[in-house]
Amino acid sequence: MNKKFINIGVIGCGTVGSKFIENLIIRKKFIAEKTGIEINILKVFDKDKDKIIPFKDISAKSPEEIIENKDIDIVVELIGGTDYAYEFVTKSIENRKSVVTANKALLSKYGKELFKKAKEKNVYIGFEGSVAGAIPIIKSLKESFIGNKITKILGILNGTTNFILSEMYYKRINFDEGLEIAKKLGYSEADPTLDIKGYDTGHKILILTYITYGVLLSIDEIFFEGIDKIETLDIHFASELGYRIKLLGICKKEKENIEIHIHPTLLPKTHLLSLVEGVNNAVYVEGDLIGKSLFYGEGAGGKAAASSVISDVVDISRKIVLNGYVEENFINEKKIILKPFDEVETRYYFRFTAIDKPGVLAKIAKILGENNISISSVIQKQDNPQKAVPIIMLTHKAKEKNVKKAISNINKLDVIKSPTIIIRLEENLM
Amino acid sequence: MNKKFINIGVIGCGTVGSKFIENLIIRKKFIAEKTGIEINILKVFDKDKDKIIPFKDISAKSPEEIIENKDIDIVVELIGGTDYAYEFVTKSIENRKSVVTANKALLSKYGKELFKKAKEKNVYIGFEGSVAGAIPIIKSLKESFIGNKITKILGILNGTTNFILSEMYYKRINFDEGLEIAKKLGYSEADPTLDIKGYDTGHKILILTYITYGVLLSIDEIFFEGIDKIETLDIHFASELGYRIKLLGICKKEKENIEIHIHPTLLPKTHLLSLVEGVNNAVYVEGDLIGKSLFYGEGAGGKAAASSVISDVVDISRKIVLNGYVEENFINEKKIILKPFDEVETRYYFRFTAIDKPGVLAKIAKILGENNISISSVIQKQDNPQKAVPIIMLTHKAKEKNVKKAISNINKLDVIKSPTIIIRLEENLM
Repeated sequence: MNKKFINIGVIGCGTVGSKFIENLIIRKKFIAEKTGIEINILKVFDKDKDKIIPFKDISAKSPEEIIENKDIDIVVELIGGTDYAYEFVTKSIENRKSVVTANKALLSKYGKELFKKAKEKNVYIGFEGSVAGAIPIIKSLKESFIGNKITKILGILNGTTNFILSEMYYKRINFDEGLEIAKKLGYSEADPTLDIKGYDTGHKILILTYITYGVLLSIDEIFFEGIDKIETLDIHFASELGYRIKLLGICKKEKENIEIHIHPTLLPKTHLLSLVEGVNNAVYVEGDLIGKSLFYGEGAGGKAAASSVISDVVDISRKIVLNGYVEENFINEKKIILKPFDEVETRYYFRFTAIDKPGVLAKIAKILGENNISISSVIQKQDNPQKAVPIIMLTHKAKEKNVKKAISNINKLDVIKSPTIIIRLEENLM
Repeated sequence: MNKKFINIGVIGCGTVGSKFIENLIIRKKFIAEKTGIEINILKVFDKDKDKIIPFKDISAKSPEEIIENKDIDIVVELIGGTDYAYEFVTKSIENRKSVVTANKALLSKYGKELFKKAKEKNVYIGFEGSVAGAIPIIKSLKESFIGNKITKILGILNGTTNFILSEMYYKRINFDEGLEIAKKLGYSEADPTLDIKGYDTGHKILILTYITYGVLLSIDEIFFEGIDKIETLDIHFASELGYRIKLLGICKKEKENIEIHIHPTLLPKTHLLSLVEGVNNAVYVEGDLIGKSLFYGEGAGGKAAASSVISDVVDISRKIVLNGYVEENFINEKKIILKPFDEVETRYYFRFTAIDKPGVLAKIAKILGENNISISSVIQKQDNPQKAVPIIMLTHKAKEKNVKKAISNINKLDVIKSPTIIIRLEENLM
């Protein structure tokens, strides 16, 4: 006989945890009607006594009361971080409990080990909430696109930085002012480093790469750059040229080569990704059967993540009641090689700050030419011999290492007054 | 012991069928590594002998050879239509085989009966390919968004009509010319009626409504209007006002009231749906937890649908090897009532063709006012007393029955020279 009741325990009653519990309770009857499975929240733990108050009837005194509870089938870990979370998740799996988590830092660091352990114990790990909030990108890559060779994944994966970039664009304010507003509205952590420096986007694109190609890289192995150096000036020059600037996590595969990089990126205004504003997220995927596809949704906030956590809990419950185990392996089909970032080719936006006198453009163009970098368009706005003026340039595809060398040489020219701004550009997406 | 081999039979080797078979064979090893399940295509049938040639090693002499085959676990029906398809699907289910189909006409007509029968026999029906090609909208609504109360579904669900509207917009050609190009490029059936009149969009929105709210309505119960009456003029007036015109399937729910309608619709150019061009599809979904979300992808073509069919086959295979059965019911939570179209409220675009003389606008405005229709903007371009001129008007929200009455009265005015063009408008989506 199939089991028709599933018991879960929840560790962590913060923004996501509390929304998850509330809404699972509200939807319990509906889910039971849909699936024939009654999902009960047996125990809830949070080290903060205040957070547990709304759920005191089912509060646990310690995480062990959940992790070691013989009646609990699924442990939902929503505390974040990589210390306690790692310990709780590991122990839960060892105790043959499936786990649902929204913890991208944990999975990008310990994913390989945790998934291996889960398979040994015949339990499942659900992690839809770890990437792009409510967007079902994990399930789509794992299940819906299983017939595809995926060639590109590009994501706006961090709500905080996307919000700041939108504010900078629409209000013509600078980065610091944008960050200040994000903090005031609760869209940024007290310490925004993980967001603005690109770590968070990095963790998420690494998870997407892992489930797609079976390779879990470390953030130290890839190039990443945040948005804290982005100037409003460049956002508006880009706009004049028909582009928006977004922080993208990028993963591309060609034969056995994979490239992964995270940086602010110019996107044509006609591309759907460029219309993603505020704290929203979006993921663009290319595959041999699906062609070009895009998922858009709320990337931040307790409700969006709670939606994904509920979906994971229901999915795993369905599998558990079937009293069996289906494998779910992340397969490295061919031996995939990470392309060194120096070898990556892309288009570029440069802003040179140069003295406005004859021959400057020729000097810049000469060095670019010598490094196989060809120019696709130039704007030189002002005509003011007294001071340095910005020269904006878009290039055709060029190699990262050639750009590095060329710009280093250009910056040494005596007509160049400040280090050149380099922003990468993606196109031909849709 | 779990079964680790799944055998399937395929009926129909047309555009979708052949791409499905080819790609499932290519991906067989990969899928086996991912899931631990080897999926074998045991038999293939098509009444057209030419289509079966590439698969002659596994060709069946009759559909019965598949439907009655004791070794076959899943029957993949890809012949389309509602006659033979209904017979084959019904018999397959009766023989305790799960079914995968991309047949929206079949499901929108017989869905209720087929899903009931499948449940009785403890088998599954996969139908991701029936709506929006490669876009995983069925799975997302059924599984990923299970924790949500869904309040709105808006879809660009028909590639042919979206292609024609894009051509009309960019090339400034008329509907007939657009249809001609669609036919030449193979984007339109020989008889395009189902597409251009809105039936196909209707079938698809009805399926989405069914899986979301548990109510399967018939296309005769809802309002639908195609794009064959759309004039290039209106596409460009709309554009001047900041809107694009798209054929939308619309389903909204408020308390126990549901409204479903299909018609050309003005969408703000800042909305992601308005950027969906050519044969692409997109579905916009709102829910209480997910907020606002959007899925974009290729809506037409064999490869896109094959991607969804493969995903269904793998999903069902996973369930079958577990040797159990999980229910999947489409639940009508409250007793849902279809709101009569007359009671639906929306914004409107009107184009009046009026004689250009003093007092015309006052006459029109008076009738609108009497019917509780308030104007949000007006364009009257030309100033030519000799002939009739277009007056373009956008309204605030108004009731369909009031609009019907007002426009009927306005059309009777002697200053009005042609029947007024009415196009609906959606906003506040994102």
